[in-house]
Parts: sequence; structure tokens; C-alpha cells
Amino acid sequence: MSKNKPTLPQGTRDFDPSTVRKRRYIFDTLREVFELYGYQPLETPAMENLDTLMGKYGEEGDKLIFKILNNGLGDPKNIEKSKTAFERVLEGKNDTDLTERALRYDLTIPFARFVAMNHNTLTFPFRRYQMQPVWRADRPQKGRYREFYQCDADVVGSYSLINEVELASIYYTAFKKLGINVEIRINNRKILAALAEVCGGADKLTGITVAIDKLDKIGLAGVTQELAQRGLSDIQVTTIEKYLGLAGSNEEKLDALKALIATSATGATGIAELETILNYPGSPVMTVDLTLARGLNYYTGAIFEIKALDYQIGSIGGGGRYDDLTGTFGVPGIPGVGISFGVDRIYDVMEGLNLFPADVHTGARILFFNLGEAEAKAAFGLLQQLRAKGIAAELYHETAKFDKQFKYAEKKGIPYIVILGSEELATSTVKRKDLTTGRQETLTFEQLLTSLL
Amino acid sequence: MSKNKPTLPQGTRDFDPSTVRKRRYIFDTLREVFELYGYQPLETPAMENLDTLMGKYGEEGDKLIFKILNNGLGDPKNIEKSKTAFERVLEGKNDTDLTERALRYDLTIPFARFVAMNHNTLTFPFRRYQMQPVWRADRPQKGRYREFYQCDADVVGSYSLINEVELASIYYTAFKKLGINVEIRINNRKILAALAEVCGGADKLTGITVAIDKLDKIGLAGVTQELAQRGLSDIQVTTIEKYLGLAGSNEEKLDALKALIATSATGATGIAELETILNYPGSPVMTVDLTLARGLNYYTGAIFEIKALDYQIGSIGGGGRYDDLTGTFGVPGIPGVGISFGVDRIYDVMEGLNLFPADVHTGARILFFNLGEAEAKAAFGLLQQLRAKGIAAELYHETAKFDKQFKYAEKKGIPYIVILGSEELATSTVKRKDLTTGRQETLTFEQLLTSLL
Repeated sequence: MSKNKPTLPQGTRDFDPSTVRKRRYIFDTLREVFELYGYQPLETPAMENLDTLMGKYGEEGDKLIFKILNNGLGDPKNIEKSKTAFERVLEGKNDTDLTERALRYDLTIPFARFVAMNHNTLTFPFRRYQMQPVWRADRPQKGRYREFYQCDADVVGSYSLINEVELASIYYTAFKKLGINVEIRINNRKILAALAEVCGGADKLTGITVAIDKLDKIGLAGVTQELAQRGLSDIQVTTIEKYLGLAGSNEEKLDALKALIATSATGATGIAELETILNYPGSPVMTVDLTLARGLNYYTGAIFEIKALDYQIGSIGGGGRYDDLTGTFGVPGIPGVGISFGVDRIYDVMEGLNLFPADVHTGARILFFNLGEAEAKAAFGLLQQLRAKGIAAELYHETAKFDKQFKYAEKKGIPYIVILGSEELATSTVKRKDLTTGRQETLTFEQLLTSLL
Repeated sequence: MSKNKPTLPQGTRDFDPSTVRKRRYIFDTLREVFELYGYQPLETPAMENLDTLMGKYGEEGDKLIFKILNNGLGDPKNIEKSKTAFERVLEGKNDTDLTERALRYDLTIPFARFVAMNHNTLTFPFRRYQMQPVWRADRPQKGRYREFYQCDADVVGSYSLINEVELASIYYTAFKKLGINVEIRINNRKILAALAEVCGGADKLTGITVAIDKLDKIGLAGVTQELAQRGLSDIQVTTIEKYLGLAGSNEEKLDALKALIATSATGATGIAELETILNYPGSPVMTVDLTLARGLNYYTGAIFEIKALDYQIGSIGGGGRYDDLTGTFGVPGIPGVGISFGVDRIYDVMEGLNLFPADVHTGARILFFNLGEAEAKAAFGLLQQLRAKGIAAELYHETAKFDKQFKYAEKKGIPYIVILGSEELATSTVKRKDLTTGRQETLTFEQLLTSLL
């Protein structure tokens, strides 16, 4: 056994009690909103078969998937097994001899796998939310971890734009409950497709999307340079510059846009979709952001991104509509739309703006001092009665000096202490002290049990 | 991309919405009780460094640890990297070239690792609970999975037996809240140590413990046979038979036990500890079970096991006191005591005895039918007002036949439907139907929003 000081794997974190409680506050708030909208919880295993995951995230993504070593390999007592497996891998024959399973990389592909496996029994539209960790072998850096939670809500089996309105409304409601001022930005991939059409052909769409997606990082000059490098003519680049420069209210932007991409039927559809979503009665306020592109290829309609208004940080949510969730698993024709919450960044915003409610730390409310065996036994009886009433409380574990017990209460942030010494025991009373105000009262046992804190 | 029908890795499970909700009911109940007792939540990463885990679970355990392949190995585009790593592994030089990280096998070692890393800043006694999945490469079979949740509560940094009383009380309270009738069985490893002393020496303790632990499976004859094979004399085996045969009330058993192991000081301590725990005022009813041994080696004092009384299944909880949590990580002198809840078995018991409350399925309460564009818009306005009041509700995603919308409500178990057609829209009313009773009412919009369901 190693006697070395242990460490954590790079890019992973322990969550101490205070952090778990704050994170749980975020998860509980999101869950409550998802449930209000009829979304249902789903959980999938951490491990998936390797062929479920590989090839779904592009070449770069594939490299970041954590693979699980097949059992028994590397065992010095069974070196033959390793040898055979290694030889086959090196001959390029079969790398499933080395690994057949991997840790999930996101929640979308496991969801697609679940829907593909169960589409005959699910009721569509199927609305699910999922809040689970994912793993990526990224280089760890500030704010980027190898294990982190994703939190997704998707509805599949429906083309209705009411879903987009509801998901925007989920964003609005959730961030309102969390106390974070946000801008809900919306665009539509059909508009970007129309822009590509106008600029020389649909085959330019990915290039244009990728370039526009970098606008925040490399600026307009960088984008135009990249577009030129990707083979767009000056006229085409000018059109895109004009597109990126469209300003004003949502209506003004859309009106100007209609002129710019007038020749594209796809564009007209995209604009109409946007207008339906924006104008649906009860729809939350959104900002049309024509520079919004989103990185992922599979979006086909509305795309969303959430920007925190009072805190400098990247987007804290995003999503969009896709045409085909499960085609890659042999079940075509299931469209959907989904959104994601960036829980780690939301945590940073709330911590930075001091938005966590004070009572998020729901630890014990009362510490009974331990002042001797008979006293502790009496205290324990009272303690159990308080717990039965739902009040979290503790008895100090052993008889110790006042000072030591005080410090324990302070360090654990327990707001009240109860003193039951020999004198109090004789009179069936306790002294209760409020550590916040310093106020101390003498109470009968009955008063202690019935007075509210 | 594979077009094959996807599957799940052996021994893993998806949890559908209904199952997630029932499991969450168990977790929430346990969490509530842990918090009442001042236990605080901790979460550790799924991955640990390999040397944190290896050598901690015995030879068999080591084999069942899922190891994570180092990044880039097996990549056909970088075969040289694999080759170098494989060669070193085969030469027995360094198997960390193949894998450096592994999935956690239980929650105890990660907790020990956390305490060892943070013991300078933690406030002791430190009470934590942890509810997270663990992974074991066991052969999957009925009720045994490769990914399953553990749910542990431990207090470390205290020798006080009040901790044992509190943990027994946590068991009692939690199972009462869940509605499961249980027997809390208790024994003490010091008593087993005394039995070993009396039977020829402390070196026999592990053998005797292992043999007694099999009593349920192989019966008394099997145990005595195994003891004989382990080199115990007839007289020693007879003493153990006598020990295993001790019957009656807790007091009767302990009295008879005192005679049997009278010569052992350790035994006297063990019995005194048991008596203190059993007789502490407010302590829940427990059954002294002298045949209780528990598999793990590291227990040194009280040991617990929970038996469901109304359902045939193995133990649904267990735990005990240990002298040294973190010595293996170079931080000696931190004793503790902990208990564990078998969540999968608890789920089976509750499902088998129909103990989940009916309202565990907290899906949408109301489905608004979608009967046209204008009608849907009006319905959506009402829907959003209901949601703002905290009532989970849905609007059917598109205009469709009555029958189809009915079926959706039925399949999702939504208890009320609201019909807002052209006629209702003209009069600002709705029809609300209770699908359970079949009763239908006509309500004004105002009535719909204010009447309780």
C-alpha cells in the first residue's frame, strides 16, 4: 500500500459540503422548472459501448473520449492476455481487444442511444431532462475540467415551434429563479444557410458558420480574413460583413435581413420561424443575434445562447433544433430541440455576484454542548425530539472544554448552542445562546422544544 | 458511424423517468435524515489515481477495478505511442504507461483520500454522507450491476459511542420514513476477537470471521467444517458452536456470552460497548446478533446489519467502527464509524411491497388540448399562469385529433385534461376533465387558475 500523500487526478475536483449544497441549489432550481414544463428525468450509465460514442464528436472529440481498459489487461500475473491483445492492436486488427467501453462525453449521444433503443415504447413527444457528469480528456485549465456536469433538456418527436417558445421560457424562468439577469439570444440556422446560398452555395455553410462562431474571439477583421482564406470572393465577404453589421431592434434586424437574403426560400422560412417564436403570446423577451452561429453541425433551425448581463463570462447556456437525433443509430425521422445549462459557469456567476441564498447552508441549527455523561444523556433525549420535529441538530461527541465546543459550533456555522450542565439538569432547564446576536436565554425543556428558531 | 442497433454495456442500466423519481425519493429521504443528524454532503470524482485504489480491496477487489486507458493508446494514427507503452507493460517495467486512473470501486477509499488530503482544514469530528455511483467489473447477474450507487454516512475523528447510537438511530428513522420494517442487528468485532483468543489465538480471528460470515449460506455444519479445515481443534470448534448457539433476549445472550469469553479483557470491552449502545437513552431497538461478522477486515468495534422483515432479500444496510481510516494514506490516528444503505435492494423492497407513495410521480398535472392556432395561443397563456403558480402542466405540441391527445395524457399519466376549443374561446371558458373519475366541469379562465387540483 502506498504511504504517499494522495492526490486527485488532474482536472477533477472534490466538492466539499458547502459547494455540494450550492450546486444542489442550482440543480434543484433547474429540476423544478423542468418539471413545471412536463419534462421528465432520465439517467444513463457513465459507461457506453465504445462504438456508441466513437465517430460522433468529430476527430478532435474522438481523441478526448476516456476509454476503459478491458478487464485483466496489464495484470502482471496474466501477461499472456495482454500480449495477445497488444499484438492485435499493433497489427491494427482489432482495438476492441484493448478497450470496448468508454465514459460518456456528453448527454446527447447517450440520450439518442436511449431513444433509439426504446422508441417503440416511448410516448412522443418525449421530453426529458438529464443532469449527470461527463468526462473529457481535455487539457485542464481554469474553468475547464475533465469531469463536469451537463444539464440538458430536450423534446424529441415534434416539429412544433411551441417547443422553442417553451424552452426559451424555461431559460427565462430558471435564470429568474436563480437571480441571474440574462439575455436570451436567438438565431436560426436556416438564416445562416440562406446567407451561404446568397454567398455562392450551400457547401459554404460550415465554413461560414465556423468563421462567424469565432467573431467574439477574433473580431470582424479576423472573420473576414478567415472567410477570404476559405475562398469567398470580395463580394461574398462584403455580404457577410453587411449581415454581421445588421443592427437595431429585432424587427429592424429582421426587416433588413429580408432584403439581404430575399432570394432564399430557406431564409424566408428561417425568418418566419423566428417571428413565430418571438411573437408567440407569453414568449419571453429574446434578442435576435444574427452573429450567433453555435459550434455544432447538427442544428437545423432555431439556435439559442444565454449571456449573463452582470458578470463577465462566456455563454451560460445554449441549444437549438436538430432534424435527426437517432439516425446514426438506425432510427431516422426523430427531430427535436434542446437546451443546455452550463452549471459550472452558472455557479461562478452566482458565487461572483453573491446570489446564493443565505439558507443554502442547511447544516445543523443547534449544537448541544456535552458537559458530562448524565448531562449528555439528557441532552440526547431533547436532541432526538428536536430532530423528530425536523430540526437538524447535534450533540458534541464527547465531554470537552467549553472553548473547544464553541469552536466546533463556529467552524461548522451552527447558529445556536444549548448548554445543559449539572445546574440546568437539576432544574430541567437549558441555556440557549444565539451565536449571531450573542443573546442568551434560559428555557425549560418544553420551551426549548416548542420555541421556533 | 455505426448504423447498428445500439446496446448498453453489460451490467449497466438506463433509469427511465419513473425509476429516476422512485430512486430520488429514496435518496431525498436518506438525505433528509442525514442532514437532521448534522451529516454533510461530500462528492468526489468518478476517477481516482490508480495508486489511490490499488491494494485497498484485496487481490480479488483489485481485479474488479475498472481502469482507464491512458489517452492516445490504441490510436491507429499514433501506433508508436502504443508500441512503447505496450513494450514497457510486457517487460513489467511500468504499467502506468497503460493506465494511471481508475473508476472508484467504493466510497470509503475516496473519502479516506479526501480526509487525508484535507485533514489540516477539516473540523473534527467530521460527519459526511455521500451518495454516488461506483463501478465494479463483477460478472453481471440478477441484482448485481457493474455500475450502482452507494450511499454512505461516516463520522471520523471520534471514539465516542454516541456516534454508534446516532447511526443506529439514522437507520431506524430512515427506514421508518421509507415504510420498511427492519431489524437492526448489532455485534462487536471485539467479541469475535475474544472468541478467537479463547479458541487459540488472535491469529485465528480472520478465519473465524470469514467462516461465521458464511453461516447464512452454508449453515452451521458448513461453518464447523470450514473451521476444522482452518486448523481449529474439536474443543475450539465446540466453543464456537456454543457461541453461535447463544439465544434469547439481548440480555440473556450477553449474560451467557460473559461466561463463555470470561477470560478475555477485549471481550469484556466489546460487551461493555454493546451495552452502552443498547442502553443509551433514546437508542432505537436493536437485536444483538452474535453470528453477525461482516466481510470487511478493517472493522474493530460495533458492526451493524439491517434485515428487511417483510421481504426476502439480503441485508439492505451495514457498517461498523474502524480504528484507522487514513493510515494507508500516511495520516494515522483518525478512527471512525460508518453505515451504508443498499439503495438497489431498498428499491426492490419498496417496489415489492408497493411502498412508494402515489405522488412520487410528480409529472405534469394538466394537459391542455391543442385545438387550433388561436386556441393554442389562448391555452398557452393560461398554461404559463398555472406554471407560475407552481403547477406542472403541458400543452399538446400540435393540433391533433382528440383521441391522440387523450392517449398522450393517459400514457404520461397526466390526471387532468383541459379543453379550450373555438366555442370555449368565444366564451372565455374551458372544460376540465378529471381522467380518474371521468368528471367534467366548465370553468371560467379565472376559475381554472384558482381552483385547486
